[in-house]
Amino acid sequence: MQLDVGSHLPLHAQLEERLVHEITCGALAPGSRLPPEDVLVDRFAVSRTTVRTAIQSLIRRGVVEIHRGKGTFVTQPKITQELTQLTGFVEDMQALGREPTARVLDRRIMTANPAVARHLGLSKGDDVVRIQRLRLADGVPLSFDETYLPRSLGERVMADDLETQPIFTLLEQKYATPLMEAEYRLEAVSADPRTAKVLGIASSSPIFLIERTSYTRDHRPVDYERLFYRGDHIRFVTRLARRAPSNVQD
Amino acid sequence: MQLDVGSHLPLHAQLEERLVHEITCGALAPGSRLPPEDVLVDRFAVSRTTVRTAIQSLIRRGVVEIHRGKGTFVTQPKITQELTQLTGFVEDMQALGREPTARVLDRRIMTANPAVARHLGLSKGDDVVRIQRLRLADGVPLSFDETYLPRSLGERVMADDLETQPIFTLLEQKYATPLMEAEYRLEAVSADPRTAKVLGIASSSPIFLIERTSYTRDHRPVDYERLFYRGDHIRFVTRLARRAPSNVQD
Repeated sequence: MQLDVGSHLPLHAQLEERLVHEITCGALAPGSRLPPEDVLVDRFAVSRTTVRTAIQSLIRRGVVEIHRGKGTFVTQPKITQELTQLTGFVEDMQALGREPTARVLDRRIMTANPAVARHLGLSKGDDVVRIQRLRLADGVPLSFDETYLPRSLGERVMADDLETQPIFTLLEQKYATPLMEAEYRLEAVSADPRTAKVLGIASSSPIFLIERTSYTRDHRPVDYERLFYRGDHIRFVTRLARRAPSNVQD
Repeated sequence: MQLDVGSHLPLHAQLEERLVHEITCGALAPGSRLPPEDVLVDRFAVSRTTVRTAIQSLIRRGVVEIHRGKGTFVTQPKITQELTQLTGFVEDMQALGREPTARVLDRRIMTANPAVARHLGLSKGDDVVRIQRLRLADGVPLSFDETYLPRSLGERVMADDLETQPIFTLLEQKYATPLMEAEYRLEAVSADPRTAKVLGIASSSPIFLIERTSYTRDHRPVDYERLFYRGDHIRFVTRLARRAPSNVQD
């Protein structure tokens, strides 16, 4: 089976797409080992450099991953998480049958930058509390979360045990601040160096950035978060109707 | 203003975060020019290599961009698109006051791979029509779309003028196939070589991949799409309630 030397794509890119095709169509199953380099060199009649370039790109894309000392394996399927109602990390993981844990990396009082102040409805120069946590699912780092709370509320929350208690639960059950709804802003970005380090992934890996502003009664914003999810580990699913429900007459 | 040589982050990563901070807090506005290399070298007391490494990373992240012959500029804000009802690209861009155009890159009849067959409710070995289009907003490539339709419907659609007519409009107005709802699956991925080439971005740039299966009456799937949006150009926004409406008692 040979690649097309006359193609407009370089050989390593053609090989890459061929391997992705074998994964997509099921010939290479999730969790299975890629054939060794020698076998790929022979099978596609390309150089070892071409094979390595293609595999490096597949690693960057999260399609395959290296298991030290064992070889290169097709990545397991992503976690598929519902994006249909306002839920916190612990609720999400429990719904998926995974064990959520958290490590608190930092908590401090700071002056709100203009973006944070805007999202929380604060004035320029107001203080906020920022809590940085690493969230894990079954022990695997999944998300780096930055939570911003207005100072009065945040000072109480930051004194709690945030490795065992979800902030949503604290707000709702301890601080009488029911969450009613949230605005989600979703972006696909490359990991900045700090986020990559915290999540244990290569710099520039794809990241699902969710900015979420949660509101309590009277549409008052109380919790602004920046959630950096590992793109190689998560997928969000939602269902949308063709017309907004309020316009549907039949 | 000096960086912290004792920090656990390398100098270029510290400089990168410092520049991001200046952009986030508004000191460097969207569309403004970054200070020249010399100025950054003096101001942060770092080497030219450090400045270049930091800026290269910011370019990869889409935070800044090079305007040939003019310098490096802070990227303009992303297009913010609602993700609240099932809408097509043309409807989305018109709602944002942008001019949508399309280039048809390929259209063909092919055997459905297992994923496509599953999404369209077809059997193994069934044929589908695949249409590949580049979608532009105000002349800027924004999305590479692959549309899969069942063969009988697809053969009619592929004969239409797909550079002027949206497929959603054709389905609803010409082929009596009303769209009722869709399932969206959202991922953050790195651009594969082919998609990067089509969109005119660097390989491995962040991509917002949306897999969308649209249903007509009786929950029958009629249109399966893979939409590759440029991560540097788009953001999706939605609002979610804390409880599903059916569970809210008060």
